[in-house]
Amino acid sequence: MFEVLKGEDFSDLLKGNVAFVLCIGNTKTAEIKGITAAGENPELIKFTPPADAELLYYGKCKTIPFPPVTPDGKPTPAVITYTALRLLGTPLFVVDSGLIVKPKIPYVTINAPVGENIAERSAMDIERVVESFEYGRILGREISKAFDVLMIGESIPAGTTTAGAVLKAMGVDAKVSSSMPKNPVDLKRKVIEKAVSRLKSGEPLEILAEVGDPVLLGVTSIAVGSKKPVVLAGGTQMAAAAHLISSLGDGEIHIATTKYIAEDRTADIRSISPVSVVAADPLLEKSSIDGLRAYGEGFVKEGVGAGGATLLAYVKGVEPTRFLKEIEKSYLEIISG
Amino acid sequence: MFEVLKGEDFSDLLKGNVAFVLCIGNTKTAEIKGITAAGENPELIKFTPPADAELLYYGKCKTIPFPPVTPDGKPTPAVITYTALRLLGTPLFVVDSGLIVKPKIPYVTINAPVGENIAERSAMDIERVVESFEYGRILGREISKAFDVLMIGESIPAGTTTAGAVLKAMGVDAKVSSSMPKNPVDLKRKVIEKAVSRLKSGEPLEILAEVGDPVLLGVTSIAVGSKKPVVLAGGTQMAAAAHLISSLGDGEIHIATTKYIAEDRTADIRSISPVSVVAADPLLEKSSIDGLRAYGEGFVKEGVGAGGATLLAYVKGVEPTRFLKEIEKSYLEIISG
Repeated sequence: MFEVLKGEDFSDLLKGNVAFVLCIGNTKTAEIKGITAAGENPELIKFTPPADAELLYYGKCKTIPFPPVTPDGKPTPAVITYTALRLLGTPLFVVDSGLIVKPKIPYVTINAPVGENIAERSAMDIERVVESFEYGRILGREISKAFDVLMIGESIPAGTTTAGAVLKAMGVDAKVSSSMPKNPVDLKRKVIEKAVSRLKSGEPLEILAEVGDPVLLGVTSIAVGSKKPVVLAGGTQMAAAAHLISSLGDGEIHIATTKYIAEDRTADIRSISPVSVVAADPLLEKSSIDGLRAYGEGFVKEGVGAGGATLLAYVKGVEPTRFLKEIEKSYLEIISG
Repeated sequence: MFEVLKGEDFSDLLKGNVAFVLCIGNTKTAEIKGITAAGENPELIKFTPPADAELLYYGKCKTIPFPPVTPDGKPTPAVITYTALRLLGTPLFVVDSGLIVKPKIPYVTINAPVGENIAERSAMDIERVVESFEYGRILGREISKAFDVLMIGESIPAGTTTAGAVLKAMGVDAKVSSSMPKNPVDLKRKVIEKAVSRLKSGEPLEILAEVGDPVLLGVTSIAVGSKKPVVLAGGTQMAAAAHLISSLGDGEIHIATTKYIAEDRTADIRSISPVSVVAADPLLEKSSIDGLRAYGEGFVKEGVGAGGATLLAYVKGVEPTRFLKEIEKSYLEIISG
């Protein structure tokens, strides 16, 4: 069902009133060939975050005529999150954290820029980071007034690479996860080293601006603004966010992720997270659907808050085997359009 | 304190968990000379809605270096709303309902267009209205999951004229309020008649698209999407919204306004509202500050949800005389920047 990988079991928190906040954006770091599997070709990568967000509201995508699913049928983890939100009726707020293409839904903007390719130049202008951080902080404060806990997920292709750079900049020399079973660690390492070599400051917002991405900016600012505990739903990206948040604020922060991240031998969430980590198991290796079973073989692993959404469903009383059946039902609905 | 002008006393609803949603936008109808006092000159009118929203979050404006206050010191009613939200800690969500200038805050977008001048052409493209309506409906549904009641306010210069056109199109031949003590009723009537003469349909979204404005679109769609009771905070504009909402949905809708609207002899909220109306009295005629006392003489009257915010403060236990003192404190803070 779920396993405490590090620290305390915070899952009881999720028995309260939960808001699900999804930060979506882009970094041009995703244009580096071979760095991400999120989207089947470079032209489509920029549509993945808005399509993920649309899927959560509509059970289908609107900016592209098909869901973010690879040609061989490996679906976006948004299918898992959609299933949990659908079953539980959890309120969803989507935040434009630096999108190239805007989603066809209502969404909040914090005026975050699209992230530049960190192998080549600064990710974001520092003045813009400071401005967006303030808006994100206000947003986190306002949403948190009405809830017991905020769960924050993300969708940003190549986000593990920028997260690796942020971790390295903060002194955590970690390998990071990948949406591909063969993690392109050497390529990522080169990009990360090039980015971090430009850094002149250890100040969290300077690190975000130089080597981060706008989704890390959104997640961090909203979490810092929250007056209630925050569960970061994701893998190594959320470990990077947790380091930034801990150095900027003093709120209660946890990470919820998937079993597939816990099992990732190329990147250890236990060693890089500064906060408690719980991993939920959506049982996808037991699925009768090939595309879902691929998760058990190391494809995709996490994203769009899938691990946190699974944990939320379990804590709210959805049985794991029923949850798998509901994920399969969602998948078939989504695939058939 | 407050008075039931029509229907039932719904004020007890506000003892629950309230979200304040502010829809801000523009209609080029405001460019007609003499139609609005919201903003001291035509170039500044477009800054009034974002400045009002900034004032609610920061207690000062950011897109312009001064608050929306006329040269002779009559302040925006946002001063009243700011005071209530500040005292109560009510969560605020601002919605871009067709802005020319975006505010320097986090805000939700529903992709509403700026409204055209209804004296000259259709206010909005119908396809765009249908799209934004869907986003607003989703937004209302999501926010309402976490609250007992939504209070919705507005800021749109010349919004009473477009509201008058919507009312007339729906068969309510009403005079509408004005931010000026001498309501330019003849000018408004001419604009309204010209707009309504173009109408070919009695369908609510067609009416909105032809003779309405994007803020009425935002307010109506969010209210229709809400799963909880909605209190529309405003004057004649909210009466127009209430007619649209009632013809599109079956939720519980009320109007909260100010005493200054109740006393307006040129426009009768009692006769034009299809729902219960409560008017709250912020006691501004007792203020030691000239600009606030002007409200008692018929200037400004309402806007930015000031009447609803006053009612909310009273229901939550703020004494009227203390509320006036706090409004004066806010005013002095805001004026001094």
